[in-house]
Amino acid sequence: MPEKNKETAILLLSCPDQKGIVAEISSFIYQYSGNIIHSDQHTDEESGSFFMRIEWELEGFEIPKQEIPGAFGVIAGKFSMDWELHFSSVIPRLAIMASKLDHCLYDLLLKNKSGELRAEITLIISNHSDVKPIADYFGIDFYTFPIDKENKFEAERKEIELLQKEKIDLIVLARYMQVLSENFVELFSNKIINIHHSFLPAFVGAKPYHQAFTRGVKLIGATSHYVTKDLDNGPIIAQGVISVSHRDSLEDLIQKGKELEKTVLSRAVKHHLENKTLVFGNKTVVFD
Amino acid sequence: MPEKNKETAILLLSCPDQKGIVAEISSFIYQYSGNIIHSDQHTDEESGSFFMRIEWELEGFEIPKQEIPGAFGVIAGKFSMDWELHFSSVIPRLAIMASKLDHCLYDLLLKNKSGELRAEITLIISNHSDVKPIADYFGIDFYTFPIDKENKFEAERKEIELLQKEKIDLIVLARYMQVLSENFVELFSNKIINIHHSFLPAFVGAKPYHQAFTRGVKLIGATSHYVTKDLDNGPIIAQGVISVSHRDSLEDLIQKGKELEKTVLSRAVKHHLENKTLVFGNKTVVFD
Amino acid sequence: MPEKNKETAILLLSCPDQKGIVAEISSFIYQYSGNIIHSDQHTDEESGSFFMRIEWELEGFEIPKQEIPGAFGVIAGKFSMDWELHFSSVIPRLAIMASKLDHCLYDLLLKNKSGELRAEITLIISNHSDVKPIADYFGIDFYTFPIDKENKFEAERKEIELLQKEKIDLIVLARYMQVLSENFVELFSNKIINIHHSFLPAFVGAKPYHQAFTRGVKLIGATSHYVTKDLDNGPIIAQGVISVSHRDSLEDLIQKGKELEKTVLSRAVKHHLENKTLVFGNKTVVFD
Amino acid sequence: MPEKNKETAILLLSCPDQKGIVAEISSFIYQYSGNIIHSDQHTDEESGSFFMRIEWELEGFEIPKQEIPGAFGVIAGKFSMDWELHFSSVIPRLAIMASKLDHCLYDLLLKNKSGELRAEITLIISNHSDVKPIADYFGIDFYTFPIDKENKFEAERKEIELLQKEKIDLIVLARYMQVLSENFVELFSNKIINIHHSFLPAFVGAKPYHQAFTRGVKLIGATSHYVTKDLDNGPIIAQGVISVSHRDSLEDLIQKGKELEKTVLSRAVKHHLENKTLVFGNKTVVFD
Repeated sequence: MPEKNKETAILLLSCPDQKGIVAEISSFIYQYSGNIIHSDQHTDEESGSFFMRIEWELEGFEIPKQEIPGAFGVIAGKFSMDWELHFSSVIPRLAIMASKLDHCLYDLLLKNKSGELRAEITLIISNHSDVKPIADYFGIDFYTFPIDKENKFEAERKEIELLQKEKIDLIVLARYMQVLSENFVELFSNKIINIHHSFLPAFVGAKPYHQAFTRGVKLIGATSHYVTKDLDNGPIIAQGVISVSHRDSLEDLIQKGKELEKTVLSRAVKHHLENKTLVFGNKTVVFD
Repeated sequence: MPEKNKETAILLLSCPDQKGIVAEISSFIYQYSGNIIHSDQHTDEESGSFFMRIEWELEGFEIPKQEIPGAFGVIAGKFSMDWELHFSSVIPRLAIMASKLDHCLYDLLLKNKSGELRAEITLIISNHSDVKPIADYFGIDFYTFPIDKENKFEAERKEIELLQKEKIDLIVLARYMQVLSENFVELFSNKIINIHHSFLPAFVGAKPYHQAFTRGVKLIGATSHYVTKDLDNGPIIAQGVISVSHRDSLEDLIQKGKELEKTVLSRAVKHHLENKTLVFGNKTVVFD
Repeated sequence: MPEKNKETAILLLSCPDQKGIVAEISSFIYQYSGNIIHSDQHTDEESGSFFMRIEWELEGFEIPKQEIPGAFGVIAGKFSMDWELHFSSVIPRLAIMASKLDHCLYDLLLKNKSGELRAEITLIISNHSDVKPIADYFGIDFYTFPIDKENKFEAERKEIELLQKEKIDLIVLARYMQVLSENFVELFSNKIINIHHSFLPAFVGAKPYHQAFTRGVKLIGATSHYVTKDLDNGPIIAQGVISVSHRDSLEDLIQKGKELEKTVLSRAVKHHLENKTLVFGNKTVVFD
Repeated sequence: MPEKNKETAILLLSCPDQKGIVAEISSFIYQYSGNIIHSDQHTDEESGSFFMRIEWELEGFEIPKQEIPGAFGVIAGKFSMDWELHFSSVIPRLAIMASKLDHCLYDLLLKNKSGELRAEITLIISNHSDVKPIADYFGIDFYTFPIDKENKFEAERKEIELLQKEKIDLIVLARYMQVLSENFVELFSNKIINIHHSFLPAFVGAKPYHQAFTRGVKLIGATSHYVTKDLDNGPIIAQGVISVSHRDSLEDLIQKGKELEKTVLSRAVKHHLENKTLVFGNKTVVFD
């Protein structure tokens, strides 16, 4: 962790692997008097891809913030990079979508309040009004969009409009019980994080705890992943498990699972908010 | 754990749930001056079944060992019990089936040697001769039954003959790479334990580490289960997981998995050897 | 878990180990038409002590609730038992003591609200007023007793008075930063649960995360225990750990630790509330 | 992991933190056509120290292996680095010291045999002859140096002579029951790895499982660390824990602990053998 008060720049990038990338980037930073405080890289040998996260202090860095993209663009072009530049001073704007279950919602709100999740939770969307009092307690704008078969398209249109108007950087599905349309998902590619209450790819789809109970597993899991158009099949960011036994009823599984869902979801959200995740194909690199 | 030197009797039973079972059994033991040292029970509410494991010291017990089955049979009949009676003085006879991979084989042999797994490892069967030197080192009889499509039926016939002749109580498939026939499995119902190198039911079938690598999971698992005619679908006895990341190659997954397979398989075998497992439907009760 | 609607009786007992205890108790229950739904026992061989937790349905049980203690007392006397009788219909009255840190407080309140912790959280006591808004949000009575060297005796006197008046069954110290006096502790023997933010007995006393950071450990822990007059030395109910590395600053340790503290404390409280804990000497039996 | 067949160079270094280190090192490698395949760094803010591990392929690198130290020495001097250069083609020479317990010894030998631990296990030293047959089975030279109060100095002298003559790179104490003298430890500074059978700093010294049993902990641990002159107080490389309960006897703790000791020790040894550990003060950086 950098000292909390010092502003940093973070580059997240991927490109075809080749010699000289690290040298070029680190020399660029050094040349303008930047002090690198974190650097992590990964090479995927199958695809021949190179991934990097590099963070440096802006204090004393000789290129003004707004000019860094232009200056770095030259290097990026040379190596055919996909890249993002983030500043630690910019707090991401986060929207939570929830239904009736409130454990993940509370957990995100409390971790945000205590400073563990560095985001501005801008708004909460729900297809029900049950969790409105929670939004009120935390002073977060709350929007209800009831959804049924008929109005789904229209409801999503309004949600998208709202999310775009509010310049939302990350959408977290906190046990949100509606499947988002392909259009919705594509508009927020790699910007929607979901929690699935099983150890994916086991128990895909509905009622995974019921499935786990029926199968008689000795561990139950939770999986947090980016949402793609293929249900429960997006790039996995974090997973966790907890022991269960024959003594656990279905209700016990659900209860134990709640604790796990909170932990796994907030871990994934934290990784994303700290710009530590990169998606490649259907996998993630998590620079933790 | 009882004192190692005191001989005990262990009853494992299941029956329809009803009042008075515990009272009847514990009174039976007390009436003949037995000292109960462990008692564990479970009621499955879905099926209305009652399960019990009860262990008492034989020292001072007024019914001779060979007459206990007859005496207890009266109670068993009254409650329509399925039951097994074991004596701690009887060391189960265990056969290991292995192919070329030796990590689980070594692990079982070493844990047996050090007293952690209380069994007499009577023989090792393989479809190859690679692991014969290991059998020799530990002084265990070794049998090779090469298997191909043509001879499978005949080879299994000989294996079964051997296992029956040697009065084998438990067969452990220590990464044995052949699928046993339905006939084989039924002859040794709930007496064959396998280790599957994934977190079942994720990644059923062949090459689960390859599947896990392709899916980009953040945890890999291992599952030990009783073998039934449905491949990888038998009652689960034990499961474990270990963290992996984008840095882990397929080879790393395989290596990390080995450690896990050993741990999970030996845990399941230990539970069985200590008469702590009961199968019901496609699940297990593990009195650990 | 019993069906939620059926009322049960739970006996928690300990006595010198001897033959016939289980038979006597189970026959007592059966004789009056009780249906045992859980029974767990343990024998501590060192001390020759027997421990038991037995739970049966009251529906159809032929002794009225208020007469059970008298009826069972005869058996208890015969075996010199220490025993407690609980009814599942009686919701324990719980008091939380907190200071400024609110993560454990929130966690207990939310788990209580969602039904995971079955208690009536009667009141919250703090030596500060910071967490009062939380008490208000959850509608719990809140009492501030500021404490300094001079008034400690007097403040505790008032707290004790309040706790006794409110017939509190369990006091949970949710990161409460004051050391309770010997007198206080003895008045609520085995009825005060604390969370210590380290893997006891490592890092006893103040600032355990600082100690852990300085020592360079690779795991940090949390320990929930009954409070005794010896600081951080009471009977342990639950422990947990989480991985850390050289990358984790002291602040990261504190943050990771919070998650752990919540989990471990609520698990211990849950065990107690479900009458699953028994203290013997400086250890616990946890019938989980 | 690099492709197994490609030879790599690995630099491990530490120096006072300052701007330009990464740029200088990566440019040095790039300038001579090296392809960086791994790079990891850490800054300890307390001490203002910078740590790095960087690995590049030697194929095509324009400086001959034997001249790399001279060439890099210029950069190292400029930044006042402590540094080590390793080549993946050089297999470290490892000595194991053991007493009578053989579980960690077997584990290291088997993992070495299967390729999981890349080392040449050159010799085994013991103060007893019990484990000699194991050395024989694996074809490793075995030396017995019985140790008592009188001969300790002389025995250690011979051990040191042997270890130096055999150019041992790493000494692993696999539950070796003798305390090494200060002189011995200093001669092999940061080259001796021990496994302590507890979660340090809890239960320092003799009989930690007895201590853990008496304290009634719910988790037991194991700690692998570099040996320093302060017993059980050296820099920690890896730690692990496993759950225990009131049902576990002291003997059960010892047995469960064995599994843990093997896992934790081999993990630490693997980190060291892959040149992923750096010691600073009484802590380690583990680039895993």
